Amino acid sequence: MARVSQAHLDARRRQILDGAVRCFSRNGFHATSMQDVLRESGLSAGAVYRYFASKDDIIRAIAVEVVDTIRSAYAEAAGASPRPTPDALLSTVLDRVFHMAAGGDDPLVSTRLILQVWAETQRNEDLAAALRAGFAALHELWSGLVQEYQQDGRLPADVPAADLARILIATAQGLIAQQALFGDVDPSAIGAALRAVLRPAAPAQ
Amino acid sequence: MARVSQAHLDARRRQILDGAVRCFSRNGFHATSMQDVLRESGLSAGAVYRYFASKDDIIRAIAVEVVDTIRSAYAEAAGASPRPTPDALLSTVLDRVFHMAAGGDDPLVSTRLILQVWAETQRNEDLAAALRAGFAALHELWSGLVQEYQQDGRLPADVPAADLARILIATAQGLIAQQALFGDVDPSAIGAALRAVLRPAAPAQ
Repeated sequence: MARVSQAHLDARRRQILDGAVRCFSRNGFHATSMQDVLRESGLSAGAVYRYFASKDDIIRAIAVEVVDTIRSAYAEAAGASPRPTPDALLSTVLDRVFHMAAGGDDPLVSTRLILQVWAETQRNEDLAAALRAGFAALHELWSGLVQEYQQDGRLPADVPAADLARILIATAQGLIAQQALFGDVDPSAIGAALRAVLRPAAPAQ
Repeated sequence: MARVSQAHLDARRRQILDGAVRCFSRNGFHATSMQDVLRESGLSAGAVYRYFASKDDIIRAIAVEVVDTIRSAYAEAAGASPRPTPDALLSTVLDRVFHMAAGGDDPLVSTRLILQVWAETQRNEDLAAALRAGFAALHELWSGLVQEYQQDGRLPADVPAADLARILIATAQGLIAQQALFGDVDPSAIGAALRAVLRPAAPAQ
């Protein structure tokens, strides 16, 4: 058997995932078959099954990729110097999610994929566990940030950081849902409205 | 044919929808068949098909019920005197959604049903249109409320009411998603954190 490079393996894997995402985006997870994925990716069954044993394997790989995208977008934006304000962080992350590779840079595809993953956790315990772990990590990251914002006076300090972090993540999740459902979310308008409405710790003078 | 009362018809319809919701909650829309719904509701095929021609009809009826519950919860809470604060309104509505009839008063079932409906809009244009109409009505209602809050000085007046309304609805949607996915959302803790973080129009003295 000929040796193949890692870059070649990665490109093939990407080709399969991109084909699967296009299928899922048109028809959802359930109405898509492995045959559809083969046809869409232009690869043989032998090539595809070398990477993924089943459609559930592909769905899981996509879910992990989505969670990683969101977590690294937060980590990167949060690590910038100077530290962005909470509203800027949230709109940057939304923008990254709308244009992630797994969604082919298309906000409608990216966000619909996330809604499919959420619904799928209901019948797939592996996927549910992966998502719980991803959320827990994200929530911890955000809680740490909120504590810094509270110390800086950018967010009120008289409520638990964990609760504020939960609300900020929920706002991002809800906007992802709105984008998937209605296709009309503008991250920069959202950033401006959040900037106006988030109360700093100390009253403005 | 014997005449049957409207109350009897309504009770039968409720029995079918409740059975369907239990099935959907266990297995999702796609892995549930009309046979499963018959078995779960304890009714004959003749009885069920008199009310619903297909599984898609049942899903649509449930989606309409969910949207109506959310809209009437907002309208009722918003119409209370004195008008509740934005945070109180949001936590009241969340509480109503978590305990709605279509979910059998179970927060996990209610919220998972909503996630299923969101995902299902992707392959069902009728359902997508119903949801768009429901969101538009809710967004209009919330935008009117936000304008009143802006006039009262409870929310900042220097950003469009429509954008603030979108963010508040998104927060509720995200918390519904978190409850469905992780089962750990506490509406009253959320209300307290929102109360702390939402900035009034004028700086506090």
